[in-house]
Amino acid sequence: MSQNKIKLGMIGGGSSSFIGLTHRIAATMGENFTLVGGAFERDHNKALDFAKTLGLDLSRCYANIDDFIAGENALPKSNRIEAVVIVTPNFLHYTMAKQLIQAGFHVICEKPVTNTAAQAIELEQLVTKHKVVFALTHTYTGYPMVRQMKTMIAEGMIGDIQKVDAQYYQGWINPVIHDKEKRKSVWRLDPEKAGQSCCMGDIGVHAFNMIEYTTGLKTTKVLSDLSTLYNDNPLDIDGTALLCFENGVRGMVRASQIATGEENNLKIAVYGRKGALKWEQENPNYLYFLQEDKPVQVFKPGHVYNSDFAKESTKMAPGHPEGIFDSMANIYNGAAKAIRAEAYQKGAFPTIHDGVRGMKFIEAVLESTQNGNSWTEIVDEHEDN
Amino acid sequence: MSQNKIKLGMIGGGSSSFIGLTHRIAATMGENFTLVGGAFERDHNKALDFAKTLGLDLSRCYANIDDFIAGENALPKSNRIEAVVIVTPNFLHYTMAKQLIQAGFHVICEKPVTNTAAQAIELEQLVTKHKVVFALTHTYTGYPMVRQMKTMIAEGMIGDIQKVDAQYYQGWINPVIHDKEKRKSVWRLDPEKAGQSCCMGDIGVHAFNMIEYTTGLKTTKVLSDLSTLYNDNPLDIDGTALLCFENGVRGMVRASQIATGEENNLKIAVYGRKGALKWEQENPNYLYFLQEDKPVQVFKPGHVYNSDFAKESTKMAPGHPEGIFDSMANIYNGAAKAIRAEAYQKGAFPTIHDGVRGMKFIEAVLESTQNGNSWTEIVDEHEDN
Amino acid sequence: MSQNKIKLGMIGGGSSSFIGLTHRIAATMGENFTLVGGAFERDHNKALDFAKTLGLDLSRCYANIDDFIAGENALPKSNRIEAVVIVTPNFLHYTMAKQLIQAGFHVICEKPVTNTAAQAIELEQLVTKHKVVFALTHTYTGYPMVRQMKTMIAEGMIGDIQKVDAQYYQGWINPVIHDKEKRKSVWRLDPEKAGQSCCMGDIGVHAFNMIEYTTGLKTTKVLSDLSTLYNDNPLDIDGTALLCFENGVRGMVRASQIATGEENNLKIAVYGRKGALKWEQENPNYLYFLQEDKPVQVFKPGHVYNSDFAKESTKMAPGHPEGIFDSMANIYNGAAKAIRAEAYQKGAFPTIHDGVRGMKFIEAVLESTQNGNSWTEIVDEHEDN
Amino acid sequence: MSQNKIKLGMIGGGSSSFIGLTHRIAATMGENFTLVGGAFERDHNKALDFAKTLGLDLSRCYANIDDFIAGENALPKSNRIEAVVIVTPNFLHYTMAKQLIQAGFHVICEKPVTNTAAQAIELEQLVTKHKVVFALTHTYTGYPMVRQMKTMIAEGMIGDIQKVDAQYYQGWINPVIHDKEKRKSVWRLDPEKAGQSCCMGDIGVHAFNMIEYTTGLKTTKVLSDLSTLYNDNPLDIDGTALLCFENGVRGMVRASQIATGEENNLKIAVYGRKGALKWEQENPNYLYFLQEDKPVQVFKPGHVYNSDFAKESTKMAPGHPEGIFDSMANIYNGAAKAIRAEAYQKGAFPTIHDGVRGMKFIEAVLESTQNGNSWTEIVDEHEDN
Repeated sequence: MSQNKIKLGMIGGGSSSFIGLTHRIAATMGENFTLVGGAFERDHNKALDFAKTLGLDLSRCYANIDDFIAGENALPKSNRIEAVVIVTPNFLHYTMAKQLIQAGFHVICEKPVTNTAAQAIELEQLVTKHKVVFALTHTYTGYPMVRQMKTMIAEGMIGDIQKVDAQYYQGWINPVIHDKEKRKSVWRLDPEKAGQSCCMGDIGVHAFNMIEYTTGLKTTKVLSDLSTLYNDNPLDIDGTALLCFENGVRGMVRASQIATGEENNLKIAVYGRKGALKWEQENPNYLYFLQEDKPVQVFKPGHVYNSDFAKESTKMAPGHPEGIFDSMANIYNGAAKAIRAEAYQKGAFPTIHDGVRGMKFIEAVLESTQNGNSWTEIVDEHEDN
Repeated sequence: MSQNKIKLGMIGGGSSSFIGLTHRIAATMGENFTLVGGAFERDHNKALDFAKTLGLDLSRCYANIDDFIAGENALPKSNRIEAVVIVTPNFLHYTMAKQLIQAGFHVICEKPVTNTAAQAIELEQLVTKHKVVFALTHTYTGYPMVRQMKTMIAEGMIGDIQKVDAQYYQGWINPVIHDKEKRKSVWRLDPEKAGQSCCMGDIGVHAFNMIEYTTGLKTTKVLSDLSTLYNDNPLDIDGTALLCFENGVRGMVRASQIATGEENNLKIAVYGRKGALKWEQENPNYLYFLQEDKPVQVFKPGHVYNSDFAKESTKMAPGHPEGIFDSMANIYNGAAKAIRAEAYQKGAFPTIHDGVRGMKFIEAVLESTQNGNSWTEIVDEHEDN
Repeated sequence: MSQNKIKLGMIGGGSSSFIGLTHRIAATMGENFTLVGGAFERDHNKALDFAKTLGLDLSRCYANIDDFIAGENALPKSNRIEAVVIVTPNFLHYTMAKQLIQAGFHVICEKPVTNTAAQAIELEQLVTKHKVVFALTHTYTGYPMVRQMKTMIAEGMIGDIQKVDAQYYQGWINPVIHDKEKRKSVWRLDPEKAGQSCCMGDIGVHAFNMIEYTTGLKTTKVLSDLSTLYNDNPLDIDGTALLCFENGVRGMVRASQIATGEENNLKIAVYGRKGALKWEQENPNYLYFLQEDKPVQVFKPGHVYNSDFAKESTKMAPGHPEGIFDSMANIYNGAAKAIRAEAYQKGAFPTIHDGVRGMKFIEAVLESTQNGNSWTEIVDEHEDN
Repeated sequence: MSQNKIKLGMIGGGSSSFIGLTHRIAATMGENFTLVGGAFERDHNKALDFAKTLGLDLSRCYANIDDFIAGENALPKSNRIEAVVIVTPNFLHYTMAKQLIQAGFHVICEKPVTNTAAQAIELEQLVTKHKVVFALTHTYTGYPMVRQMKTMIAEGMIGDIQKVDAQYYQGWINPVIHDKEKRKSVWRLDPEKAGQSCCMGDIGVHAFNMIEYTTGLKTTKVLSDLSTLYNDNPLDIDGTALLCFENGVRGMVRASQIATGEENNLKIAVYGRKGALKWEQENPNYLYFLQEDKPVQVFKPGHVYNSDFAKESTKMAPGHPEGIFDSMANIYNGAAKAIRAEAYQKGAFPTIHDGVRGMKFIEAVLESTQNGNSWTEIVDEHEDN
């Protein structure tokens, strides 16, 4: 915090946007970013009113992304917005990210990064070419105990991994899915807006990302059984994917949006030769470390016994719970370090390569089910993680 | 308890047998059975010593099952042992059960009931023919909250089922499996003694049984990915089976013996249109009832709000926990009612048909993996459950 | 189990007695005792019917305790009942225990041991004089994790104790207490039957016993605030007692029967200089070990890391929960060792001295409240524990 | 959010201040406040550097509170700071609050509000006189499930209250307290800086506040037993206070800083005739509703079944946990409504009267222990809550 704050712009996220608020909170928590301007919504008068409530200089409130890029680039560099967060509807992520990267802005982008793996690969190449920072808000990776888990596995505390099991169960689509009329009102069930997949694209990919993030393993192939529940529903709303990792280790992603009564029940268990680690998103401040013939150990944030990475990811002393906003803020804080060219922990923020991996996973599980639940490869051309 | 106790015999279960003790405790808890005699171990002198410590009439302590059958049948019917519990090594279950059924004894048998589905089907036919009671100790079905779950599902409290997820994770084989010498000392890894399967045969089948027991659904096909971890290990020690039920509903059985640090982590979640039920074996006195837009409800044993079946399966007032012995005792109490030709709740004890279903499941998951993880049917010729 | 079973008699506990059943289960679980006879209920015909269902020799089913003592003493010693369990209504415990001790029987007695501390002291002297074993079923001390806690504290794993907090909350009296008519139906609210105290006598004393049992500390004085809720209710149904131990350490017993919705929520936390231990009766298979700057450790039964005392108090491998019957059985198993003059762990069964301590505690908390919530001493003339 | 943000000033909270950061996060989360200036630390050059990193207009960064008041009052009203948060060391709260109130600023003040009850009463009178908003950051009252608890009790869902039990256990002072040298380094053990009490003043008062906040009951007298552990330690570091409420209902506050291994284990249980509610700060998103003969219900934030007050206190859909910052932010959001003269829920922020009550509680428990653990009255001259 010894430096000036990074000037942040926002595309989307206007007055009625919940995700915009979330990102503004997360961006400001670490006192690394200050929101300077943006292109908040289609209706420019509403956007201006909104910018006023935020106390922004209205000349930095642009009508659209083109004006945003032109306007900011016309300003002297010292005054110019440096990083831009994209919180528009999903189908716009790709084109907007592409424009911003090419214009030299650092980008923080909501998930899903693109509609296809090919688009994500293209963005990855652009990020490299234009030397910008690209942070993808796989929010759950920001929890201190997830980061503690990643460190413990990397340090060999559970030994060679021999089994991974990740789940993301929700029930929210249950009251909708059985009624064809209600379904029409849900954009996530509309391929035009939601893309190729509903359940795997929205939540299964979080479980997949959590596996690769915490273990460092690369998935080499998947065998999936996705369900749309009804023939006239075009997108998956439930599914299980068996995973095979580079060294033959088995894992799985279990995802559902018809798990009635479940909220955001994302959890992961990683079993190694020497021990195991278990974590659940709804109780994120507890990390369970299992060892043969030893009492189970429960790790909590804020303690000296945690790794540096986990320690820098909590602001509070032990016993004062932090939550999802704090988790996303940790991703912003990691991105800030990269933008300032400071050293940062591996995994301090999910990158465009996480986006590529996620899109490949989604395409592979769709293909596996289409091909009669057969094993489908996921190739990793490129290393970054 | 207004009647005389049922005279019980035991095959196997001698002085050093833990499982024998378990069954004697379970059998006596409900005060429905009294142990009268048996063929406890190969070394007849040791068996006699053991029978003495139990305070048994030594004339009822036989050298082997043939002597047992002959000896008891020579006694007047009023004095004769009525029911026999088989707690010998697994590979003997089938032949002993067959002998006892044919000799007219009621049988309580440890799991697995047989080595093959064909043998189980044969026993099922014999049970019908000889009109005896056959109880298979799928012990976990005796927990009051499992029975509450079964009742609630049967009564439609969660509506039509749309997703089932059952798990049985253990870690005990982890310290053994990586060392070829150590493996040799483990009979469960020896096909001669353990049969066709280790993980699925020993614990996966419990998860499978728990699904069919609580939901009443019949599995019609499975797709499995079983792992032996090492090529020179002949039996599965980890595996996942995707399940498809009669009405197209999806489910899964996840089982592992290399989930380091896990003890007997059997759990089940059943999601229906109207609600969901979740239960875990290691905390068996809590049943979670989830409903859309309502607080989660936690059911506990001993309360008036439980079903009759659950209520009759607990001896204590709420808040005094019962455990695994009480669970097995409930199965004995159910069998006692059947033996006395009293009315009993559906599911009061697992039957030979549960044994048939379990053996078919094991054979199907083995076949699926052998056939490249393809869907494999499970046929149910016969209805009883 | 290498010896013959101990011949057990039972006073009270007839056909409709739940507590009788409980003791029969607990006594037989360890295969150390065999029920031989008793004086089960006032109506001798009913008692005979009941004895028949138990398969007992009807000549050992006596009309009353005098006949029991006379009848058994007339038998040759090798055939005679050796130990007697008293499960009659509370107000009879003292006189029956006295008779049995004087006649040379070992005694297992339900709680409360007597109506007054003076009676308990008298029994203690008789036990010493007649050299019999006397086990008081403070059932909760039989849980393996309570015993593990006792050992860990004794071995200094939490260092010098500096704070103790024990609670026993129930809600069962809430639906009764507000209605004068309903109150009349509850024997626990009748001083004739229940003695001097309801809440502290029935459950507060369990919390007190748990403190002295696990810590080895002696309470030297108490300051209590007991409540009867209504002036025309003669007995306490709620109360808190501040405790002071020999070395000035503070503790407390919190007890209530109007804690609506609570079942048997007994729990204890012991804080020492080096660490802390926490345990709850309703989840008895988890013991929490807290240390400054270290992950919390969760101990579970059946593991090699437990003390010998805890290990011998569980029959099952880890992850198969045992409950309240198993806990009481452990007390019977401890008493069996004492009866057979075998070595046994300190605390293997609660003694008559625990009964003396408990009665003194009850009398002291009553006196403290009567004297305007003033500190009241508890003297310990005698050492045994 | 349809209005301009409230201009906020901060006294204290400079670059190295954790509590300053906490308040800045909480103040900005709801987008109701914007930090405009302050008097951040004694070293004015450091303060200016710090203000720069925050992106503030340096002319609003004052050398001290007097300059702050003079400088802001010299500005036109529309530009002037409207509300000031006090995050200086405790002993300065009173004088600074007094100055700010008298100068017409709304005040948000860290706990403890003053050093004595008399000072708090004086502030209360000034708040009334000057018609300013005064919010005391009893942070835990901002949790949505605490607010849900308050509403449910107010609506009679648990009926008349008959028992209250609140606890706040920490262990942080344990490693310090036994060493006289180490003690000197802890300002909380220095009466000059910490005031009259350590444990009760810092954390016991939170438990007390939680009781009066959630139940609406007024405590009329207390009997306490506080401990300093060592005679040469002047301040309490552990203590229990028995409480008596206006209608004779009993309650208690249990507090400790020597509860080794505890973090911020604040919890509360309120038992009424019809039901009970239980909540724990370390797992703040679960509220347990107990009822006789019904399954326990678990309430979670974000659900439609919650009260309006609870619903407006969460930003996220169910299953995405919020934490302590979100809780404090809710207090800021409540204060913002009051400052804008909008309608707000009773309890939307703790008031100066909560501060008065807390100081009276602290003085009463100190007096009770000094007077030999006798009952000590707490008078409430004034009604506001």
